[in-house]
Amino acid sequence: MAHETKQNLAREFAAIVGDDEVMTGETDLHAYSYDAAVLDPVVPSYVVRPQTTEALGQIVRLCNENGLPLTVRGAGTNLSGGTIPHPGGVVVLTNRLNRILEINEEDLYAVVEPGVITSRLAAEVASRGLFYPPDPGSQTVSTLGGNVAENAGGLRGLKYGVTKDYVMGIEFFDVDGTLVKGGSRTVKCVTGLNLPGLMVGSEGTLGVFSKIILKLIPPPRAARSMMAVFGTIKAASETVAAIIAAKIVPATLELMDNFTIRTVESFRKAGLPTEAAALLLIEVDGHPAQVEDEAVQVERICRENGAEDLTVARDSAERDIIWQARRDALPALAKLKPSCVLEDATVPRSKIPAMIEALTEISKEYNLPIGTFGHAGDGNLHPTILTDRRDKVEWQRVEQAITAIFERAVQLDGTLSGEHGIGIAKARFMEREVGAGTLAYSRRLKMAVDPKNILNPGKMV
Amino acid sequence: MAHETKQNLAREFAAIVGDDEVMTGETDLHAYSYDAAVLDPVVPSYVVRPQTTEALGQIVRLCNENGLPLTVRGAGTNLSGGTIPHPGGVVVLTNRLNRILEINEEDLYAVVEPGVITSRLAAEVASRGLFYPPDPGSQTVSTLGGNVAENAGGLRGLKYGVTKDYVMGIEFFDVDGTLVKGGSRTVKCVTGLNLPGLMVGSEGTLGVFSKIILKLIPPPRAARSMMAVFGTIKAASETVAAIIAAKIVPATLELMDNFTIRTVESFRKAGLPTEAAALLLIEVDGHPAQVEDEAVQVERICRENGAEDLTVARDSAERDIIWQARRDALPALAKLKPSCVLEDATVPRSKIPAMIEALTEISKEYNLPIGTFGHAGDGNLHPTILTDRRDKVEWQRVEQAITAIFERAVQLDGTLSGEHGIGIAKARFMEREVGAGTLAYSRRLKMAVDPKNILNPGKMV
Repeated sequence: MAHETKQNLAREFAAIVGDDEVMTGETDLHAYSYDAAVLDPVVPSYVVRPQTTEALGQIVRLCNENGLPLTVRGAGTNLSGGTIPHPGGVVVLTNRLNRILEINEEDLYAVVEPGVITSRLAAEVASRGLFYPPDPGSQTVSTLGGNVAENAGGLRGLKYGVTKDYVMGIEFFDVDGTLVKGGSRTVKCVTGLNLPGLMVGSEGTLGVFSKIILKLIPPPRAARSMMAVFGTIKAASETVAAIIAAKIVPATLELMDNFTIRTVESFRKAGLPTEAAALLLIEVDGHPAQVEDEAVQVERICRENGAEDLTVARDSAERDIIWQARRDALPALAKLKPSCVLEDATVPRSKIPAMIEALTEISKEYNLPIGTFGHAGDGNLHPTILTDRRDKVEWQRVEQAITAIFERAVQLDGTLSGEHGIGIAKARFMEREVGAGTLAYSRRLKMAVDPKNILNPGKMV
Repeated sequence: MAHETKQNLAREFAAIVGDDEVMTGETDLHAYSYDAAVLDPVVPSYVVRPQTTEALGQIVRLCNENGLPLTVRGAGTNLSGGTIPHPGGVVVLTNRLNRILEINEEDLYAVVEPGVITSRLAAEVASRGLFYPPDPGSQTVSTLGGNVAENAGGLRGLKYGVTKDYVMGIEFFDVDGTLVKGGSRTVKCVTGLNLPGLMVGSEGTLGVFSKIILKLIPPPRAARSMMAVFGTIKAASETVAAIIAAKIVPATLELMDNFTIRTVESFRKAGLPTEAAALLLIEVDGHPAQVEDEAVQVERICRENGAEDLTVARDSAERDIIWQARRDALPALAKLKPSCVLEDATVPRSKIPAMIEALTEISKEYNLPIGTFGHAGDGNLHPTILTDRRDKVEWQRVEQAITAIFERAVQLDGTLSGEHGIGIAKARFMEREVGAGTLAYSRRLKMAVDPKNILNPGKMV
């Protein structure tokens, strides 16, 4: 882009949001050139931060008029490159659009702007005796707009579902900057196409969110956390399937393999059993009597399936130790090597034992350390490959291992991504899973609402 | 259409599905010219019944090649005209595509063809100790394909959600007859656009379903049903809000007004209190101890809000009496007059008292009998206007009353339709609720995937 054009556009952005909210300096641009995925950075031409949704709409319109690629960014915690901008494009920050507009205790919903941080909403509704369940790993920094764009999951997905299950309504700007509304403040709504459903997980490719209506629920009255120790990872993964088969749906049912356990323990001395082949971290919740019953059953199933030890948290301090260990998994693994590729292949939960076996083989075959942990209860494992992206020879093996993980997951009736998104990272695998017809259909939808392809181009479809 | 062309096309359909499955006789065509909505019938040119999904795809392609409007029909229980065909168009019946392809007890999902009857799936999964909650009023005849196309609700929507909340994956033919897949057999899936979300509630306008993957859950271990009698409808509707505000989410929380009570009682002598201004029919379910607790609380809240009497069902026979009364509401009202317009305006649940008040006023203002019953717990009332469509003067008042109901619902932060769909019946109100921008966006999506507008034209967008 010619220097003069660039200056002119910067002035036009500034006319909308004010001089202080348009960044074009090299340092600023570099700060927004990457996200949490292991991918090459792409430097945008502008970073713009609207303070009102009206300004947001005007920015979208200006970008479209000038054919400028636009990538909306919340906290940039994306693990598939969904917030990496397009060369020469605009990064639109939502962190000033961070008002909780309404928490309706009678009708159990909240209305938020897209830049509200997930855990802030969760805390705010908790203080009023309500519950917003989706809890992605990045919840203390991630934004609700980002959660909706990526259909973020989390530890409670098994029982409580994912972000998709909580979006009652949405308002967004189409590419012309016209406001579009879908859904409602009512529990049931079939007025018009299910645009909230379409927007969830659309990775910023179909519109720019300005307002989100989220469902709230009453919180569980009681909860109990447990940690079960297994001598083989097979026994642990079979236990997961056995718990579900017994028609118990824990709030959380997480697995950590030995590699992850040892790494977490050396990261924070929490007293984890470093000799264990695998741990299951389990929380059941609900009515106190139900929690009591289910805890007994879960313990029995664990022991029947070979658990060598089982600890039940007696108080909230002990409970925190269990869940801190789980939350430490990614940061602890990430410290071991310069690059940490967090995979997200997902299978029906009964196929977890087969998937675990496949991961062990893939780790051997490509001679790569793979730490595996994740949401075993919903079949969503996070095999984590530790590597150094600068080592080109090893990186080739990493790419082969990623392909092998994906192929095995699909063979097992699974899917490419459970919760991290397709973004740039996995776009090349899409067709193999969904077929050419599905991609063509999706592209027709995309082109219809974004003919110049300026809304987060290059992502997903 | 020229007679010869029509004959040729009939032969082409017959080449796909066989002679016996193509109907062009007047009697047959008339049988598929209407559905359960109070609207003028439209006679199609062909009725075609494929026996395989391959044939279904070929029919879609043939229709598109010839620009023939295509309306898919399950059981035709639609209440908004969604299954009324287009003049000269084709009705495609799904009742032979009725195989339950898989019930996976380990991974808690079912895979079905679109013509499977809702209650058949529910019974089949119940026999294996699982639960498919959506229970639209028409469940004993309605099909799952129709349920998905309309995002059907039901009595359990309050606690268990609606059809949308159970669609994990879908396969459908695009207008060219190419197979498109969305979603997965996994609990979490973010691979590609959320096409299952887009298809739910799309009223047959975006694709023709061939296969649906539905989520199953473990059934509640216990349930208790109650009937509370109120001296004023205001007290009953305030009780609804009070129960939710106490953070109790009953499985079902239904209201019937005096007019409906009397009509149901004269339809089937069940011993209902015909003097009552309103009844609340309530079921709490879950763990036995939770049911016990919640039943006590619900009873207390009912009495505190002025319930004059409260009966708890002591056994399944007494429980059946309560729910049969609720299921009788529509057929009983429908018998009173030649036409029965079942409205579907929905408001946030705390606005139920205000909506009930509005309905009383509207009934007086337009001098029309309106029986009100419905899913009070989720704000989804069914004010039912009894009339005779042939009485043109009265019908004008009916149309005015419908408009007044809609306008009041939207003023109360509500929506045009909670679960019956937009179809033909409510298409004219759409813009007033969602705005021109939303309609334009939806139409762009529609035209992108159906450029000749053959997929259920005239419905919704």
